[in-house]
Amino acid sequence: MNGEYMVIQEVSPRDGLQIEPVWLPTDDKVALIDALSGAGFSRIEAGSFVSPEAVPALRDGEDVFARMRRRPGVIYVALVPNLKGAQRAMKAGADELNLVMSVSQSHNRANMRMDCEQSLAAFADIARHAGSRVRLNGSVATAFGCPFEGPIHEDRVVALVDRYLAMGITGITLADTTGMAQPRQVARLVRRVRARLPASALTLHFHNTRGLGLVNVLAGYEAGAQRFDAALGGLGGCPFAPGASGNICTEDLVNMCAEMGIATGIDLPRLIALSRGLPALLGHDVPGQVAKSGRNCDLHAMPEEWTRQAA
Amino acid sequence: MNGEYMVIQEVSPRDGLQIEPVWLPTDDKVALIDALSGAGFSRIEAGSFVSPEAVPALRDGEDVFARMRRRPGVIYVALVPNLKGAQRAMKAGADELNLVMSVSQSHNRANMRMDCEQSLAAFADIARHAGSRVRLNGSVATAFGCPFEGPIHEDRVVALVDRYLAMGITGITLADTTGMAQPRQVARLVRRVRARLPASALTLHFHNTRGLGLVNVLAGYEAGAQRFDAALGGLGGCPFAPGASGNICTEDLVNMCAEMGIATGIDLPRLIALSRGLPALLGHDVPGQVAKSGRNCDLHAMPEEWTRQAA
Repeated sequence: MNGEYMVIQEVSPRDGLQIEPVWLPTDDKVALIDALSGAGFSRIEAGSFVSPEAVPALRDGEDVFARMRRRPGVIYVALVPNLKGAQRAMKAGADELNLVMSVSQSHNRANMRMDCEQSLAAFADIARHAGSRVRLNGSVATAFGCPFEGPIHEDRVVALVDRYLAMGITGITLADTTGMAQPRQVARLVRRVRARLPASALTLHFHNTRGLGLVNVLAGYEAGAQRFDAALGGLGGCPFAPGASGNICTEDLVNMCAEMGIATGIDLPRLIALSRGLPALLGHDVPGQVAKSGRNCDLHAMPEEWTRQAA
Repeated sequence: MNGEYMVIQEVSPRDGLQIEPVWLPTDDKVALIDALSGAGFSRIEAGSFVSPEAVPALRDGEDVFARMRRRPGVIYVALVPNLKGAQRAMKAGADELNLVMSVSQSHNRANMRMDCEQSLAAFADIARHAGSRVRLNGSVATAFGCPFEGPIHEDRVVALVDRYLAMGITGITLADTTGMAQPRQVARLVRRVRARLPASALTLHFHNTRGLGLVNVLAGYEAGAQRFDAALGGLGGCPFAPGASGNICTEDLVNMCAEMGIATGIDLPRLIALSRGLPALLGHDVPGQVAKSGRNCDLHAMPEEWTRQAA
């Protein structure tokens, strides 16, 4: 290792499971979260406190937070859209509230059923209510493009970051909600936002919808970001791209870091074993590659006969 | 566009189809190659001239070269392992011979059924036989790691490049045969090899086995490489990683370049349409993402009801 490190926040229990069509029992969610904290994650987005009608797959947020085994030093994050959700999450014991809205008006209406100004007013209520009792993180969804509106001007993203900071929301996530980011755009936006806050307060959230998830991670890392969201197996997905990948895959990212000499603190063999259990748990294949290929150091025995040509 | 460009050599007719279990009729191969040249590729690896017992899927190399419609300006490449293959390929009218061997002794024995020194002797025969009648490219397979031996020292790769150049083989491909490369390694090796030959003579060949294909492309490009192999749909694969991706996906790469303002000369909508026909042609899904998601500019209508949460 070369002294470099990356913080990976595992989001599969929230952004991964929320679109799963089958109900994952609370015990299985708790077991997943506990296995993730055991594998070395220091941050886990463990659930959301939204309307159970809107996201039925995560309607057991209170039970999950009550039953998971809290590992000291791990920050358990809850997604909340409004004051009611924030109150539920704080009562459940969330260490950090992740407040999510889209910078795109049309996407916020479709996704959060609110105008952007309504979301911002709700976040201001949350910030006043929470005070210093809980960490607050503000996510800028569709920061790199909107599936309805197209390109999003970087000034709009920076303006929303400034609104968050002015409310006392100290953590910021730039989210590529539907996988539209490209690496030079990522580097530019990271440099602009990093001028406003320390690396320890910035998270990048990429989806691999168009195959650029890890490309964007590396561009963001080299531009000064240190914390990244990822989901075990690459769980999650986009309602507009059936069959395309969802979140960037945690074990693929940890493997990239390991090969590059960037420390993550995460036990890759345990992570791979956990990912290999997902198809049985969820009833379908997942997009991650390293769980299928193994690590570079998982060498193969030379076959006696090999008739295939490879180059 | 910003004056930058990348040359993408399409390898699906060779590196993509060679491991397909079903026989693709010659007419379908010819139609694929002609559609690719029509989409704007200036280089297509159109087939291989190896033993028909070794690679039965490509046993119709002569027929393919005879029947494809040669578009002026397009370089049609044939993979050859030895003098006999080179003679067949030249007779068939290949514009360029791609001579492939692994820098790893064990992989060359398994894949080419020859020791490295035997492959090199065969390549010297080919170079003497071919003279200046055909372009010659030498591929260094397992240049970034071997699935049997593990890491490959960069000095060994550079030494093989020097052997190729000394024989009069003027083009060089560095191939990550089983997807073991990481971006900093790619940048280092590209800089060392670029000190020996111009950018126009170097090709990088990545597989997406561990999800790092496009990460490695961008690292190589930024270190001075300009030509990259890719396969429509991400066809191809690794016998050691069932279910993992094969070659990097051409339309995902072209999309990345388009979003970054790097010219490729390739018609992305035509390419996506072509890729969307692959599952029907081959009988299985393919790993490419952009054919599933569409381009960034393929915007969506805002749904009236949207109950999913995304961030």
